[in-house]
Amino acid sequence: MDIWTVGTSSAVPTRERALACNMINYRGERILFDCGEGAQRRIMMDKLGLMKIDRIFISHWHADHFSGLLGLIQTLEMEGRERPLYIYGPPRTEEFTDRILDTGYFKRSYDIFVEDLVEGDVIAGDGYEVYPFEVEHGVNAFGYVFEESSQVKANKEKMEKFGLESTPKIGDLKAGESIEWRDQTVKPDQVVEKVPGRKIVYSGDTSKCDNLIKNSENADLLIQEATCLHEDIEERKNHTSAKQAGEIARKADVEKLVLTHFSRRYRGEEEKLKEEAGKEFENVELGEEGKRFEVKPHRPE
Amino acid sequence: MDIWTVGTSSAVPTRERALACNMINYRGERILFDCGEGAQRRIMMDKLGLMKIDRIFISHWHADHFSGLLGLIQTLEMEGRERPLYIYGPPRTEEFTDRILDTGYFKRSYDIFVEDLVEGDVIAGDGYEVYPFEVEHGVNAFGYVFEESSQVKANKEKMEKFGLESTPKIGDLKAGESIEWRDQTVKPDQVVEKVPGRKIVYSGDTSKCDNLIKNSENADLLIQEATCLHEDIEERKNHTSAKQAGEIARKADVEKLVLTHFSRRYRGEEEKLKEEAGKEFENVELGEEGKRFEVKPHRPE
Repeated sequence: MDIWTVGTSSAVPTRERALACNMINYRGERILFDCGEGAQRRIMMDKLGLMKIDRIFISHWHADHFSGLLGLIQTLEMEGRERPLYIYGPPRTEEFTDRILDTGYFKRSYDIFVEDLVEGDVIAGDGYEVYPFEVEHGVNAFGYVFEESSQVKANKEKMEKFGLESTPKIGDLKAGESIEWRDQTVKPDQVVEKVPGRKIVYSGDTSKCDNLIKNSENADLLIQEATCLHEDIEERKNHTSAKQAGEIARKADVEKLVLTHFSRRYRGEEEKLKEEAGKEFENVELGEEGKRFEVKPHRPE
Repeated sequence: MDIWTVGTSSAVPTRERALACNMINYRGERILFDCGEGAQRRIMMDKLGLMKIDRIFISHWHADHFSGLLGLIQTLEMEGRERPLYIYGPPRTEEFTDRILDTGYFKRSYDIFVEDLVEGDVIAGDGYEVYPFEVEHGVNAFGYVFEESSQVKANKEKMEKFGLESTPKIGDLKAGESIEWRDQTVKPDQVVEKVPGRKIVYSGDTSKCDNLIKNSENADLLIQEATCLHEDIEERKNHTSAKQAGEIARKADVEKLVLTHFSRRYRGEEEKLKEEAGKEFENVELGEEGKRFEVKPHRPE
């Protein structure tokens, strides 16, 4: 599973950084979180698989998080897309998306399904779930959890110990039932292992809040906005400082923290943000345009 | 006076080319013609003077010509703009701009005045006029003429011949009145010269049509869409081939032709478009992202 930070600037783009966009590659499917202006071109330039996008989750309706939606929708059309596209977001997502689709002259070769979400909703994908959680940004705003379904797998070595070959009975073991095999009883936990799913969290735009920490617990990767240094946080209401980003990661006990959404004030000095967060949480990296973060499968429990 | 081709791709951006946008720098003021996605960032990256934009002319409401408007409007706000912005375009420009401004949560620090134009309207700027003309694109679509006002200047050498120094009487001469000076009569045409204004034409998206040729007559620079080679024009209804672009330039007797709006089909082979147009009209160049074309002042008549 790969995660790309496609755009990492806040509010306005800079020469080096485009507006908010993150993309997950889960077994070939691309899932987009936010779609700031320039997202489609960045995805194209880095050959990340624009046409494979099926779902787009908008964190909130500030333009730097959605201004690339219109262009992306239009390009999918030009590419002759036929399968539907799904767009999710906080309340008013349907209303705002309708407005985007009613601006200018369009023909559309594919369906777009739009859904206003509330905390508690779960979007079930193929082998994963995505769910929103409320964050604090002054307008309706979500963070999102991407959670891979846990898998039940037969361990080959253990199978061999029992002389078990590929047999429909493996299915029974995976389903939690004991089987009879060559005059002995084989219990599921003697052969079958559970592989916990991976968890990615995207904070969206938010001040440091309990709900973000709670929903980020034990994430493999937290993509966290870190708009400014802590000394500037008073001016940046509804945002998170790099220090706070580190605190959130530590409290939520995540595996890795990736910072994003940098104010251009720190252009060329983003390392300072990393350093500040690093004092709170060691395993931290800066998001960059088109940078790839791999999250390896978990070991069986 | 400078003209930059900011974005030169048609329909979808490519790795090398952004969507439609052209900018004129007239004595410091920036005037934008179309604003495809990525325009603001490109203008920023090339330091072309984003904050100096006062007027934006939209040729027509296909997304590749306006998808950067939202982001640009928002960035001007973030930069603390106070003076108003003017947006012009064909019928429905007000309606579509309103929809853009009603998408997402905005605050606005400056006024935006939007005007639906019809052929015959003239937008008077400081030292220039812009007027739209109808082109053929299947939807309401304009090309635009940018015309510098002609200037009346006193010729210094001729002034010296009469022993004329800086005097309010020069104003009378410029206004077309003869004056008495050191016992002789000085007529306006003995001292004062007319400098014809420069003329830039932007075709927008259109098939080859008489109204485009008529409005392009004697332009110093024609920025002309040349979506495809002539062998492909049957598939590209409502667009112009490179050959036709050359024909338009020749018939309108323009000084220079700049091609833009290239289909990505010709990616890396744009020289073929230039060659094809070049057979019809010699002084032709390809538009490139951020490429600058200078139009020097005319000599006095």
